[in-house]
Amino acid sequence: MNFVTSLMVSVIILGFGNVGQHLYKAMQASDTVAVLQIYNRSLVKNLKTEQCQNVADLKKADLYIIATPDDVIGDFSASLPFKDRLVVHTSGGASMNVLSKKNRRGVFYPLQTFSKNTEVDFNNIPICVEADNETDLKLLKELGRSISEKVVEISSLEREHLHVAAVFVNNFTNHLYQIAETIATENKLDFNLLKPLITETAKKIETRSPAEVQTGPAKRNDKKTIEKHLKLLGNSEYRKLYDELTNSIKKSNRK
Amino acid sequence: MNFVTSLMVSVIILGFGNVGQHLYKAMQASDTVAVLQIYNRSLVKNLKTEQCQNVADLKKADLYIIATPDDVIGDFSASLPFKDRLVVHTSGGASMNVLSKKNRRGVFYPLQTFSKNTEVDFNNIPICVEADNETDLKLLKELGRSISEKVVEISSLEREHLHVAAVFVNNFTNHLYQIAETIATENKLDFNLLKPLITETAKKIETRSPAEVQTGPAKRNDKKTIEKHLKLLGNSEYRKLYDELTNSIKKSNRK
Repeated sequence: MNFVTSLMVSVIILGFGNVGQHLYKAMQASDTVAVLQIYNRSLVKNLKTEQCQNVADLKKADLYIIATPDDVIGDFSASLPFKDRLVVHTSGGASMNVLSKKNRRGVFYPLQTFSKNTEVDFNNIPICVEADNETDLKLLKELGRSISEKVVEISSLEREHLHVAAVFVNNFTNHLYQIAETIATENKLDFNLLKPLITETAKKIETRSPAEVQTGPAKRNDKKTIEKHLKLLGNSEYRKLYDELTNSIKKSNRK
Repeated sequence: MNFVTSLMVSVIILGFGNVGQHLYKAMQASDTVAVLQIYNRSLVKNLKTEQCQNVADLKKADLYIIATPDDVIGDFSASLPFKDRLVVHTSGGASMNVLSKKNRRGVFYPLQTFSKNTEVDFNNIPICVEADNETDLKLLKELGRSISEKVVEISSLEREHLHVAAVFVNNFTNHLYQIAETIATENKLDFNLLKPLITETAKKIETRSPAEVQTGPAKRNDKKTIEKHLKLLGNSEYRKLYDELTNSIKKSNRK
């Protein structure tokens, strides 16, 4: 293998869900990556790259990127019919150790949420890389830099913590949006009214610490408003969440 | 009063905190609003508009906008030394009824979060208006339209619900950002890594419903990851929140 001085890293992407597809697009746009094959259970329509439905047909490549759901990464990596090659997964939630030891292991985790039919600019997406050895790490960093300006080495344990934090700012935050949408809809109010506020709330912490810009009834310990809100929420499931989040903000105040 | 056909609405802003200052800037930029005075307890430096520290010195205007903290709106409105004029507050959390009845009452609530030293584009900020009578409502709508493209009539009860929803997407969401920042910092990780994810999460719901784009361990009922995350959070105060938010997402799944 000669990837350090070579101009091209050859890559095979295994799994063509949201992450696989977005990585594929970003790598296709790069001069220094050649995607040799896409492995997917079903045939993908209108794809110029060679496809493969059987692991026995996989070509030789510098790097195999497993972009399957977390719970099948381990078994799938064990099913690969070769050894001593570099195999990585793309998951924030899975340890590098879930990968079969018969190949050299690594992680190539783009810290972002991907949806079908939504364009993303990979340039700003942090790529968190990890590998068993320095040479592989170097290749993953170079590959990362070919699609993003932000590549960082993150250990499996660090990635676990990062993933919990990501659940808070992505999954849980989206759930709060959904609660607001439900409250709006139930009261015949247009959810769109809240969108500029959502945008600004996210924008605010680009330059300032969230702790610094916290506002609201809980922050200023405005018991009257909190009581009114709890009453408005009645016995709904959201009352409990309102209460917990309010208490958590109050606790932060005391620090 | 002749505001329907007049080109100018004359306004006095009472209270010069974040909301007062931002409204002032937006109104100064409008051709159809004349800010006659700013009332504030302390003198504001470098302000071209006439200032006033004593309610006895307030001029006559089409509209008085109280932009004080919620808990003093009522008393302050009662302290105004005139009657039968149009007096509004700017609060999402306070009913129109907190205003003294001696004047004509209304609400002019810009649904946004304001910070010092942060520019906001009022054009996209929904202005929620309410008034005791149609003529005043019309004036508030016209005034709203002079600084924003989005003006809506919202009753006090509707505004209460909207305000609860706003607490979820603004105060509570920011608290989730702060939790993520704490987790990152405690594990010597750079919080900046999470910022593109925060931006994208907010951006996603501009065009799609939050319910539709919900992802994550709770959404797919990934018990293994949830267990791992709860363990990582240990006995921290955030464990409880993780648990509650996860349960709330699961409940939404079942609907």
